[in-house]
Amino acid sequence: MKNLRVPEATVTRLSLYSRFLERLDKMGVTTISSGEIAEGVGVSPAQVRKDLAYFGEFGTRGVGYNVNDLKKYTLKILGLDHPWSLVLVGAGNLGFALCTYKSFNVRGFTIKGTFDNDQSKIGKNIGELEVLPIERFEEKVKEYDARIGIIAVPPKAAQEIADLMVDTGLEAILNFAPVALNIPDHIEIRNVDLSVKLEVLTFNLGLHTNK
Amino acid sequence: MKNLRVPEATVTRLSLYSRFLERLDKMGVTTISSGEIAEGVGVSPAQVRKDLAYFGEFGTRGVGYNVNDLKKYTLKILGLDHPWSLVLVGAGNLGFALCTYKSFNVRGFTIKGTFDNDQSKIGKNIGELEVLPIERFEEKVKEYDARIGIIAVPPKAAQEIADLMVDTGLEAILNFAPVALNIPDHIEIRNVDLSVKLEVLTFNLGLHTNK
Repeated sequence: MKNLRVPEATVTRLSLYSRFLERLDKMGVTTISSGEIAEGVGVSPAQVRKDLAYFGEFGTRGVGYNVNDLKKYTLKILGLDHPWSLVLVGAGNLGFALCTYKSFNVRGFTIKGTFDNDQSKIGKNIGELEVLPIERFEEKVKEYDARIGIIAVPPKAAQEIADLMVDTGLEAILNFAPVALNIPDHIEIRNVDLSVKLEVLTFNLGLHTNK
Repeated sequence: MKNLRVPEATVTRLSLYSRFLERLDKMGVTTISSGEIAEGVGVSPAQVRKDLAYFGEFGTRGVGYNVNDLKKYTLKILGLDHPWSLVLVGAGNLGFALCTYKSFNVRGFTIKGTFDNDQSKIGKNIGELEVLPIERFEEKVKEYDARIGIIAVPPKAAQEIADLMVDTGLEAILNFAPVALNIPDHIEIRNVDLSVKLEVLTFNLGLHTNK
């Protein structure tokens, strides 16, 4: 891998290219052009070439990319050439949806444990998972060898859970609580706010209306 | 508003600035610098200034921005100076989580109707909403004056629901099904894949490991 700082937007698109290639590979497609990847994912062909160029030389001019090779390579770059164990805290509606979200498994992510401090939720099953008391978090993280934690608790509880995850030695956090968390620099954190994309839509609808 | 093509990443960040300003405004903060906005949201001060510059001149050199004015202006740009009625199809776990997701309401989004074709779900309540049969979709979209639809059905059913939304006259779609949908150009669509950000995390964890 080249030693360049890769923009996060490139990594995000790489994830989309990777899924598209996985689908094509399953369908038996063997070769593809940057134009076809671009169309499948909804970006420009130049963007596809620029994004892939961060990671080396792919494809043959006039022939295109080998689908299976490029798929495998994108998975490797994304760290998805091996499975990941995750833990989730917050067994509410969102936690329930995340635990049963099939896209995670397809990409090699398995939520191994779900935790809550609500007595009415502890002991219940989400799919094949039993909701465990938060007191067992540390013990179970070690047992599962989990490196990534998902926060699906209400905003008020999110910082406390983030601290617990950091103290327990998790290396990365995906935060669904709509609040900014204070986290040491060596921990990777990304926030998912489900309404941000809605606001991109309303921004664009505003542009139409003003035409 | 200047007549420039605004990058989607700028709109996304504007949404984050807007939330941050809303929080500050509630706390009674009256003035803020681009550096403080930057720190609160986790981007560089230059980025904040560049993003805001798409929409005009704000702030006073050496004084900063008026929090309440800038908050109101960001809401206006994002089309959030008035409420939005939404409809959602797919009353599974994810649909349930979305219908009860408090961030939507805070930003002026109200899911007015939830629809499914599963007899075991129709008639049940999600919060204050009753799950309605999909046959009543068109009638209800008109009654609610909804312009945005949310797709929370399994991938296999997503295209059919997208077609229904387009035929019913919705103008924008937020798609949570992990599948690319074919939509006419005049409809705004954005896809939310909950595992993309996980892959950004694993990419970054890979960089650490390779150090």
